[in-house]
Amino acid sequence: MFSKEMRWDMKPEELYDPFRYIMDQKGKKMRPISLLLSSSFFNSDLTKALPLAYAIELFHNFTLVHDDIMDNAETRRGKKSVHVEFGTNLALLSGDAMLLEACKLIQQNSSHHTDILKHFLETALDVCKGQCIDMNFERREIISIPEYLEMIKLKTAVLLGTALKMGAQLHDQNEIIQEQLYHLGINLGLAFQIQDDILDCYGDEEAFGKKRGGDLIQHKKSILILCALEKLNPQEKHKFIDEYHSERSDIEQLHYYLDYFKKYNIKEDAEKHYDHFKKLCYDIISQIKIDEKFKPLLQEFVSLIINRSV
Amino acid sequence: MFSKEMRWDMKPEELYDPFRYIMDQKGKKMRPISLLLSSSFFNSDLTKALPLAYAIELFHNFTLVHDDIMDNAETRRGKKSVHVEFGTNLALLSGDAMLLEACKLIQQNSSHHTDILKHFLETALDVCKGQCIDMNFERREIISIPEYLEMIKLKTAVLLGTALKMGAQLHDQNEIIQEQLYHLGINLGLAFQIQDDILDCYGDEEAFGKKRGGDLIQHKKSILILCALEKLNPQEKHKFIDEYHSERSDIEQLHYYLDYFKKYNIKEDAEKHYDHFKKLCYDIISQIKIDEKFKPLLQEFVSLIINRSV
Repeated sequence: MFSKEMRWDMKPEELYDPFRYIMDQKGKKMRPISLLLSSSFFNSDLTKALPLAYAIELFHNFTLVHDDIMDNAETRRGKKSVHVEFGTNLALLSGDAMLLEACKLIQQNSSHHTDILKHFLETALDVCKGQCIDMNFERREIISIPEYLEMIKLKTAVLLGTALKMGAQLHDQNEIIQEQLYHLGINLGLAFQIQDDILDCYGDEEAFGKKRGGDLIQHKKSILILCALEKLNPQEKHKFIDEYHSERSDIEQLHYYLDYFKKYNIKEDAEKHYDHFKKLCYDIISQIKIDEKFKPLLQEFVSLIINRSV
Repeated sequence: MFSKEMRWDMKPEELYDPFRYIMDQKGKKMRPISLLLSSSFFNSDLTKALPLAYAIELFHNFTLVHDDIMDNAETRRGKKSVHVEFGTNLALLSGDAMLLEACKLIQQNSSHHTDILKHFLETALDVCKGQCIDMNFERREIISIPEYLEMIKLKTAVLLGTALKMGAQLHDQNEIIQEQLYHLGINLGLAFQIQDDILDCYGDEEAFGKKRGGDLIQHKKSILILCALEKLNPQEKHKFIDEYHSERSDIEQLHYYLDYFKKYNIKEDAEKHYDHFKKLCYDIISQIKIDEKFKPLLQEFVSLIINRSV
């Protein structure tokens, strides 16, 4: 993806090496594809949409680079994370440059649509806010499900909404269509993230490319943990939280949580949240003001994202 | 400066606390003042220029926050640096938000002047490139003076040039005036940085607020070191570079360098570079196409910045 779309001066090379490294990795690319798909509903010529799609993916990768520094994450998509490969200082600086190049690409390719950059900058700030709220959660033991949903909305879903909306903005569609596409992206992002939490515990370890229960063992707040906390009585809740600080092995801890989940049907509770947002996606698609002939494609795309096993 | 200009939603608070912390510090504020001054040449009403001036200062502070993380700098302007006060993760994230809020402020306040944001984003990338080149220099023992000047141009001078230019862009001045103001800022920034290097060794320790020779002891490339390396014969050069790795105390190392500088009149050589850029500033002022009545004020401003002792 990197080499074809790159038009800018890539000097000094050290600053741009991490761009190539991360943009060339295999990822789902669901944000740029969302934008291209949305744009194709209004104009079959994707020339104008391509640089915006590239910018959205570049911005997403900027967030991954900086998040991996903050989380001390050693790997990403089965490869060394950028700060492990290039050092923390260069990862930080190159991340800043990714963010700026993304803004620049959008600015250059949407000069007649100032609303595009405006909305993108608001979204980019939302993503930072989501990451900040996520960091705050690490210091708290109990998070409500609405608080959690608000966090993943900001951290994950708004960018997908913005990608879908941008296709409509680029082709001067009215506010109603823009908002419908934005909300489709929000609900899609929420369903996606909830499924991600569930797959962390119940997915195919090999296909998912991560160790099962990785999030749980690191005591990351996930929909499963929050559903469990909601269901437990105060005494059990206390015991459950104490387990965060226990010195048992990872595998013992994981089994402790999984036993709880089984006993209280937590997986089913989490799936109810997933189903809720999935249904909202299909509801929006049925109402959305685009040519009916595109709807099966949109439905298929949504299904691909949220009915995944990896 | 922070409280008066803040118009945005400051939630979550943790993300914005570092904004207040760093923006409230006493600094020279030469970038926002440059912009306001330049704007005042073309329109006495500064209402439109103020948010841009704030954005330029916010961007500058973003670079300080991220640079201090990269340099492991514990203090800044006599106070704890942001990452020491708030932790590295929050400093990194809050820095990202500063950059985005700066872009957003410029976007909102220059929607009829798309060239302003375009030029700002290019400048912001130049600053990242300058920082990258500076980091590369750490791994090299010999840097030429033109290479050094190009680095400080990108890292320091372009933002001052952009601040001065932005005042003209905002009031639809022609390209010639815009470029004159930009080049004034470039030369002013270069003179300022060279003077900063000289003051590091020869300034009043108390007034300058830094320990004398701090840059030298940390083996940062400075104009003094580069002028010295240019003058020494190969054998002396070798000895001089070896001193980087010596195990002598800081004070002994400092005296070693200062003795060299005295023997070879290095301070005078550095001052020649300073005088060169200072002269260019006054040359540009004499030619610049602004109302003659403003020129004494512009001259005084330039003098304040580059004839400082602190």
